[in-house]
Amino acid sequence: MDTCNITPKLNEIGMIYFTEADIDRLIEDDLPAGDMTTFLLDLAGKKGSIALIARNEMIACCTEEAVRLYKKAGLEVGDFVASGTRLQPGDRLIEAKGEASAIHIIWRTGSAMIEFASGIAGRTNQLVMAAKKENPSISVAGTRKHPPFVKKMALKALMAGGGVPHRTGLSDTILIFREHLLFTGGYERLPEVIRSVKEKMKERKIVIEAHSLKEALIAAKSGADAVQMDKSTQEIFSECSGKCRAINPNICMIAAGAINDSNAGMYAKAGADVLVTSWMYFAPPADIMAEILPIDEY
Amino acid sequence: MDTCNITPKLNEIGMIYFTEADIDRLIEDDLPAGDMTTFLLDLAGKKGSIALIARNEMIACCTEEAVRLYKKAGLEVGDFVASGTRLQPGDRLIEAKGEASAIHIIWRTGSAMIEFASGIAGRTNQLVMAAKKENPSISVAGTRKHPPFVKKMALKALMAGGGVPHRTGLSDTILIFREHLLFTGGYERLPEVIRSVKEKMKERKIVIEAHSLKEALIAAKSGADAVQMDKSTQEIFSECSGKCRAINPNICMIAAGAINDSNAGMYAKAGADVLVTSWMYFAPPADIMAEILPIDEY
Amino acid sequence: MDTCNITPKLNEIGMIYFTEADIDRLIEDDLPAGDMTTFLLDLAGKKGSIALIARNEMIACCTEEAVRLYKKAGLEVGDFVASGTRLQPGDRLIEAKGEASAIHIIWRTGSAMIEFASGIAGRTNQLVMAAKKENPSISVAGTRKHPPFVKKMALKALMAGGGVPHRTGLSDTILIFREHLLFTGGYERLPEVIRSVKEKMKERKIVIEAHSLKEALIAAKSGADAVQMDKSTQEIFSECSGKCRAINPNICMIAAGAINDSNAGMYAKAGADVLVTSWMYFAPPADIMAEILPIDEY
Amino acid sequence: MDTCNITPKLNEIGMIYFTEADIDRLIEDDLPAGDMTTFLLDLAGKKGSIALIARNEMIACCTEEAVRLYKKAGLEVGDFVASGTRLQPGDRLIEAKGEASAIHIIWRTGSAMIEFASGIAGRTNQLVMAAKKENPSISVAGTRKHPPFVKKMALKALMAGGGVPHRTGLSDTILIFREHLLFTGGYERLPEVIRSVKEKMKERKIVIEAHSLKEALIAAKSGADAVQMDKSTQEIFSECSGKCRAINPNICMIAAGAINDSNAGMYAKAGADVLVTSWMYFAPPADIMAEILPIDEY
Amino acid sequence: MDTCNITPKLNEIGMIYFTEADIDRLIEDDLPAGDMTTFLLDLAGKKGSIALIARNEMIACCTEEAVRLYKKAGLEVGDFVASGTRLQPGDRLIEAKGEASAIHIIWRTGSAMIEFASGIAGRTNQLVMAAKKENPSISVAGTRKHPPFVKKMALKALMAGGGVPHRTGLSDTILIFREHLLFTGGYERLPEVIRSVKEKMKERKIVIEAHSLKEALIAAKSGADAVQMDKSTQEIFSECSGKCRAINPNICMIAAGAINDSNAGMYAKAGADVLVTSWMYFAPPADIMAEILPIDEY
Amino acid sequence: MDTCNITPKLNEIGMIYFTEADIDRLIEDDLPAGDMTTFLLDLAGKKGSIALIARNEMIACCTEEAVRLYKKAGLEVGDFVASGTRLQPGDRLIEAKGEASAIHIIWRTGSAMIEFASGIAGRTNQLVMAAKKENPSISVAGTRKHPPFVKKMALKALMAGGGVPHRTGLSDTILIFREHLLFTGGYERLPEVIRSVKEKMKERKIVIEAHSLKEALIAAKSGADAVQMDKSTQEIFSECSGKCRAINPNICMIAAGAINDSNAGMYAKAGADVLVTSWMYFAPPADIMAEILPIDEY
Repeated sequence: MDTCNITPKLNEIGMIYFTEADIDRLIEDDLPAGDMTTFLLDLAGKKGSIALIARNEMIACCTEEAVRLYKKAGLEVGDFVASGTRLQPGDRLIEAKGEASAIHIIWRTGSAMIEFASGIAGRTNQLVMAAKKENPSISVAGTRKHPPFVKKMALKALMAGGGVPHRTGLSDTILIFREHLLFTGGYERLPEVIRSVKEKMKERKIVIEAHSLKEALIAAKSGADAVQMDKSTQEIFSECSGKCRAINPNICMIAAGAINDSNAGMYAKAGADVLVTSWMYFAPPADIMAEILPIDEY
Repeated sequence: MDTCNITPKLNEIGMIYFTEADIDRLIEDDLPAGDMTTFLLDLAGKKGSIALIARNEMIACCTEEAVRLYKKAGLEVGDFVASGTRLQPGDRLIEAKGEASAIHIIWRTGSAMIEFASGIAGRTNQLVMAAKKENPSISVAGTRKHPPFVKKMALKALMAGGGVPHRTGLSDTILIFREHLLFTGGYERLPEVIRSVKEKMKERKIVIEAHSLKEALIAAKSGADAVQMDKSTQEIFSECSGKCRAINPNICMIAAGAINDSNAGMYAKAGADVLVTSWMYFAPPADIMAEILPIDEY
Repeated sequence: MDTCNITPKLNEIGMIYFTEADIDRLIEDDLPAGDMTTFLLDLAGKKGSIALIARNEMIACCTEEAVRLYKKAGLEVGDFVASGTRLQPGDRLIEAKGEASAIHIIWRTGSAMIEFASGIAGRTNQLVMAAKKENPSISVAGTRKHPPFVKKMALKALMAGGGVPHRTGLSDTILIFREHLLFTGGYERLPEVIRSVKEKMKERKIVIEAHSLKEALIAAKSGADAVQMDKSTQEIFSECSGKCRAINPNICMIAAGAINDSNAGMYAKAGADVLVTSWMYFAPPADIMAEILPIDEY
Repeated sequence: MDTCNITPKLNEIGMIYFTEADIDRLIEDDLPAGDMTTFLLDLAGKKGSIALIARNEMIACCTEEAVRLYKKAGLEVGDFVASGTRLQPGDRLIEAKGEASAIHIIWRTGSAMIEFASGIAGRTNQLVMAAKKENPSISVAGTRKHPPFVKKMALKALMAGGGVPHRTGLSDTILIFREHLLFTGGYERLPEVIRSVKEKMKERKIVIEAHSLKEALIAAKSGADAVQMDKSTQEIFSECSGKCRAINPNICMIAAGAINDSNAGMYAKAGADVLVTSWMYFAPPADIMAEILPIDEY
Repeated sequence: MDTCNITPKLNEIGMIYFTEADIDRLIEDDLPAGDMTTFLLDLAGKKGSIALIARNEMIACCTEEAVRLYKKAGLEVGDFVASGTRLQPGDRLIEAKGEASAIHIIWRTGSAMIEFASGIAGRTNQLVMAAKKENPSISVAGTRKHPPFVKKMALKALMAGGGVPHRTGLSDTILIFREHLLFTGGYERLPEVIRSVKEKMKERKIVIEAHSLKEALIAAKSGADAVQMDKSTQEIFSECSGKCRAINPNICMIAAGAINDSNAGMYAKAGADVLVTSWMYFAPPADIMAEILPIDEY
Repeated sequence: MDTCNITPKLNEIGMIYFTEADIDRLIEDDLPAGDMTTFLLDLAGKKGSIALIARNEMIACCTEEAVRLYKKAGLEVGDFVASGTRLQPGDRLIEAKGEASAIHIIWRTGSAMIEFASGIAGRTNQLVMAAKKENPSISVAGTRKHPPFVKKMALKALMAGGGVPHRTGLSDTILIFREHLLFTGGYERLPEVIRSVKEKMKERKIVIEAHSLKEALIAAKSGADAVQMDKSTQEIFSECSGKCRAINPNICMIAAGAINDSNAGMYAKAGADVLVTSWMYFAPPADIMAEILPIDEY
């Protein structure tokens, strides 16, 4: 694999594109003006190997970006698992070798990135499993409320774990919040609002946020393609789903607001087509061991 | 306050500098090609206000960056609390007003950022309180193992919560890991290694990582300015501290590895001068409510 | 208006966000190492005014970005018309005054940008008018096949002229081309493909490209939300629309491929819900006159 | 050819340097957050080939940049023609193969870029041919009034088509407009102005814009190295050329303002040494077919 | 003056445009992760003033950029002298006030920049004076061999000191080195080479590098607009000038190679029209004192 | 070696990381819009070689970055010496071959960079030699007062010459200037200030600037880890060193302010542990010859 390329394996979990500047930023953030420790130790000519190893069961993510980091530091990369791979304790994520100083420059930056992304992937998968147990055709969608600056990595991890983006940002979907309606006449004027939007934009679905049965029914009657119930109880969600589907059998019912692994199954049972949450983005990092060894010759 | 400036209040918790590109990146990430919803709703001419309000007790962080985001969107910003301020439920973090469409463009980006940073600040503070209860002069230091791409924000939040950076990256401190020693002859050759580093660099302390009493004692005898015990038990840490201080009363004893609020006090009692951890960086986000209201005139 | 802000008026035509780097790039591209002519003429202390004036009827676009350019050059900006405003010959787009040298640095960069964007806005509007004459509820959508590097400006101009984005890029909509189906078993396997995609992603419409009645019917029967006919004749388009709507009355019928002002009405009459084209992006620039005058005092 | 390199063949038409960020921007613009369609289709493991084929006679441009785009997406690139090559219908511009998903990510971005640049190259060539038919030693120069953000690509295409830059921006040539003279005492004071500029800067020619015979003669008498007649008729241009050359046989006579293929020959006959225009930059894109095929093995 | 603007006074010495990223880079380079000293001192609420004062006679340069730096740090800027101003010992370059912590963040970055640029401006001026003493109409031109990454600042300083750019880079002038001729048949084939270049490009002068009288004469006879003598002695330069001017009275004679203040006058006397050197770029920095004072109230 | 990598040899002198954008910036700065000379000469198909050769004894620096520049231009790089290598007149720094036009594009940018960095490395080494002759264990440290924008290159050259960074910026060390103390109660309150800082930050040394024996003694008694004497005479420095060491035998004594090769030995003799200066950053560039030759075949 060439340093600058998207790896084939990356395709398996989505096509998130990290620029050279993205990858360089990770290195430069940690190394703005040289590695003082390694410089002072004078490791010139010393060679070593590094392998990252799963300490627990986990779903690997961002190994492809680690390959790029390692190569930028001058390491020769051996085998690595693709993002989206489920690993058992002791499984190796990536192996590389080269200058000892290069290993020390890049080691923690690579590990911290994989641990962060794999943590999200794992928690996403946990949520997907919990939800699909109750409804195998449910979707788990991640919001755009991830930590700042990490959108691409958060989305990659979400998809590696079996989730899909709810919205990648404001440019892709039409999602009308209650706060939009404050400026367009409220839920009462929703029929006209939806009609007007539909006339302008026919290639995207219209999702309406609702907080009560009443709002949900107005949305469904007004022609919403999807209703996103915010923080409703299971009972209310269930009632809304039923009544909205009676109006439009194709309507998409979305549960949002504080969804996590403890309540995902509940909403799945209550009839949700999609669970929308940002819970996965704040997962604890996966625990990875770095095995660094000196090499005499290679 | 001018859009482009570091606010005076920011000084209270550190002088992290966010560039125009940093702030712009947050907006562009969410809005690569326009806000489809707001565009289609045609809110032209509608005015509104936005206020962010704490739902729980929290430590505010990155309100200054929210001010910059809001101003870039064209909003007029009113009062806001400085990063590092402790808030009670119902307290207001920031108030602004202007075009309804501008509010919708920037609302969630601003909130998600503050929630992320305030979550870290709060958890740092929780750790600081737990540790200082046992040892009022202890320091709580955050590692460089934060989520990728967020170094500046993580450090700002760390400092807002009462912590200090352990290292901001590889360019600042001299921290010799076991993995460095693999290439320099191991702990046995540590005396020569430290002597050599000290001769080259006299303006920085030398911190040595140790995993056992034996390693700690070698480090202390070799002239280390600080010993960083990785994942030691309370008992071992306590013994190491005592014996290292017997060698060098000025030595700095650092506890690292899986430090969190449940064991911080324990290590403090065991004689730690500094607790080093990345636990605060993966805090759940603070919970903030956005109050958006239409304005007829202003 | 502050240099760095999205202007309120911008809201009227969409919320395209240009970063500081976007605006700076325009200046630096033209001025990588100083303005040799103005430097050598030594205009220090000379003051002047600049006004941009429409030579023909036109739809203004990117005046807001011109304001930012002018301010970066140190000019004081007076009145300007909002993007999306229809102008008559002689109407003024923007007025500013300040250092003569500043005017010379920024004049052409600002004019060339407005001329380019206004040209696209005008041609879009021409297309919208032609299409709506036959079908008032039709949408005119611009593709992502604009000149390289100008996505945000092209989209802003498209929306200023009354169009909407077809797709802003690959991250927003699901559009399955014939070339995708080459790898998934062709149109025969489309039912399974659509079923699988719908199970994963319920919040977006699925658009299928078709090149014949047969393909269109397969798409409609397979559950496509929209069928995009590529380069079909009016007759075929008309037949496809009718038969697809018989299968699914809510299906969206899209005409694509070489759509321009000469055939837009024809496709509108043939039953198109949406016209998709990149024709507007290659419009000749609008013709704008710059009136530069010396000022003795101000 | 290495991903990051200027190709040898590029040298044939100029040495425009595109940075990694330039190339990455093209991809990221289209793919800010992953390719939803390809992700949902799950093309993992599927291989294919892509070839771009001229539909009409054309001059290829920016194939070298397409190579870089393709390689960044992970494709293996085969043969490609150099920018500046004249192609016949059916000729192949570039061939590549690799992951099906990679092909879908990069296909349209590459094609749209080549179509844009080749359109400019072709129209430039058309203008060069028209002008040289009347005067084989005439030069066709492109202004800096190209679409925003595309300077390097526009210049590359201009040169690929046989043109030269008039000015690449404000830093290279000395071109004094009437609007400069407003601040330096008008055409009457041109002798002193030119004398002053010539004393400071002896390594560059001084070009003076003129709008009438009178202004042209003042420029020639004042020592201008070149006179750029703006929007003059053929007759006036002819008279100016003759009289200016009588004053200075080495003077360069430039025709500017609304030059296109219909009047280029006319100005060439009227004695122009150089034709200056931005007409080529707004050419319709060249028409290129993408042939995408599945590959079973490779 | 607005933070983001080119100041009017800047116009006096050229129109070098520094982007927001340029200015931000200076700050971030010095402050990648906060100012540890000021953070730990906790200067919150303390106010102060800063004034930069010339220790010796000097020519100020980049005060305008210091204004931008200061404003980005939140300081309120008072008076400042324009770049190009000659100062006496004790003269004040710039005054500002605000948060003590802001002063400490920006102080050295601002001073180091002004000292660097003013050093270049001063040495340029010294060279200009030495040369003009012998030939008042001579030009002093700075090459593109300045320190890496500082082109814009070096050019601004050059112009502030009374010099002009020789070339700002490879895109502006036509300068044919001996090393170019290695690939085009040497000096013998120069007539054809110049003829070919002149036919293509009529708006720029052609400068030929020469190392001997023989080469100079070939250049002059071949139609070169300028001859650049590299490292010739005064005698040879004088002979070349005379004989070349006999061929073409308008030819520009350039002396290049190790020009400095000790030999500038000599080449001026020997008939040079232009002196080309990079000597000024490696001047010692100007010596500036920073006067920082606490303020009780303001 | 791959274009994008840190070379193994680089490790010998520090691990300064230059991003793709850093390297690209060097090229684009010189080549914003193509190489006009080479373009007009039409060197297509001509091949050549380039070798850089030391004219005098020198210490090579930034050859690794030259390799990256050359590769980006498409050259094939042969042997090159590592940064930090001492060269004799006639020694070759780097050899490459490829397209003649590529050589002309990159030649001067590469040479100017190596000359700048090698000049600094050489002068640093001269200072190190002068100082170590008097005190073999002394350190020579470079300040952050280098030319703007060149921090990474200046630090690399500093380390290549045998120096170390004093501070790489404000984020790494704690250095309290007199100007800080203006806001914290002056030298009288230094004991409390140091105590407070030490309680917060235990992993870094505290360096106090002093200007007199009195200040130095206060610093030493207050617990400073190091005292930085600014512009003291040799006699005063000697007295301060002695008396401070009497208070704290481990204290680090730093001489700063106008240190250069003429006084380095003197301060070394006076007991300095560290010499701090920016003198090396303004060294004249090393003198390197470029040998460019045509190649018929390769």
